[in-house]
Amino acid sequence: MKIIIVGGTGTMGKHLTSAFKKDHEIITVAHKGGDIQADITSTDAIENLFKQAGPFDALISTAGPTYTGPWKNLTDKEFRKGVEGKMMGQINLVLIGQHYINAKGSFTLITGALSHDPQKNFANASAANGAVEGFVRAAAIELENGIRINAVSPTVIEDSPQYFPYFPGDIPVTMQQLEYGFRKSVFGANTGQIIKPY
Amino acid sequence: MKIIIVGGTGTMGKHLTSAFKKDHEIITVAHKGGDIQADITSTDAIENLFKQAGPFDALISTAGPTYTGPWKNLTDKEFRKGVEGKMMGQINLVLIGQHYINAKGSFTLITGALSHDPQKNFANASAANGAVEGFVRAAAIELENGIRINAVSPTVIEDSPQYFPYFPGDIPVTMQQLEYGFRKSVFGANTGQIIKPY
Repeated sequence: MKIIIVGGTGTMGKHLTSAFKKDHEIITVAHKGGDIQADITSTDAIENLFKQAGPFDALISTAGPTYTGPWKNLTDKEFRKGVEGKMMGQINLVLIGQHYINAKGSFTLITGALSHDPQKNFANASAANGAVEGFVRAAAIELENGIRINAVSPTVIEDSPQYFPYFPGDIPVTMQQLEYGFRKSVFGANTGQIIKPY
Repeated sequence: MKIIIVGGTGTMGKHLTSAFKKDHEIITVAHKGGDIQADITSTDAIENLFKQAGPFDALISTAGPTYTGPWKNLTDKEFRKGVEGKMMGQINLVLIGQHYINAKGSFTLITGALSHDPQKNFANASAANGAVEGFVRAAAIELENGIRINAVSPTVIEDSPQYFPYFPGDIPVTMQQLEYGFRKSVFGANTGQIIKPY
């Protein structure tokens, strides 16, 4: 299977690349580094990445910039970080990528428990996650040619301990659990699901 | 209680104005008409509406422009209708309105069942609704001075029969049920809730 991993140089992307590369052809995409460089806040950059990558069987996105910070500093301007990044960046990967993906292919996006289980400082991520989850459910009934779409929604992840203080009492999702979540989406048959890998 | 109803000239807004005006001071806001004119896709217009309205006890929003149409026509450009309208328009009403609302006041936004129960042609609304619902949960743990926030999430509504064909099998929410949903948010004590008035 030919798998594009957007955010391939990040914490999650590196783990997934390492886990899947033995059995599959992996193309990593990142803002800097990776096999292909692309800024997913640009629709032109997304078009170019798919032209460079060629037809593929699965796209995994672990790319989700959002604004993190005190509520008192949160205005429309800061909110746009998550709107353009984790929300529209990922949505545009699907709206554009559907024209390049092989029949029976799959898209797997990243959301997170914040959509339903908020934490202070993360309202922008809560909204972006909620948007992507709503979109995933809707896209699942629209995509043709057997193309599937799911999201993986972890809590705080094991290899990002810098976030632990912001998620008091949340049991970190291990990298192995996270990998299972993506395996379920990419190699399973479900569509329109929000997969909680815990 | 002084209540601002954004979208006050629409189907829902007119019903709620009529239902609440006997016992409360109502200020209606709309793009055209209403007591105050404002385009909620503009943060400047939102600032101005709050300056005109003066301190208030509750804000109800029934304003939610989104793109409705075939999936094959859905690109980043069309998607922005819901991003700027139902999503950021409503989110900015809160981010800006929190500086004008009285202590123990409340915000009640409008979402809809499409966040979890998609229908063809409505992916933009599914995403916008999901974003607003995620935001409502997050804002509830951030707002100070006893200010509350909820969303009312109906299915298709009784007085909009033009939408019935797009929601096969959905039992329409009556205007009375919808009113109960808003009553629960404005006059009740809950916060961070997605109220399903059915």
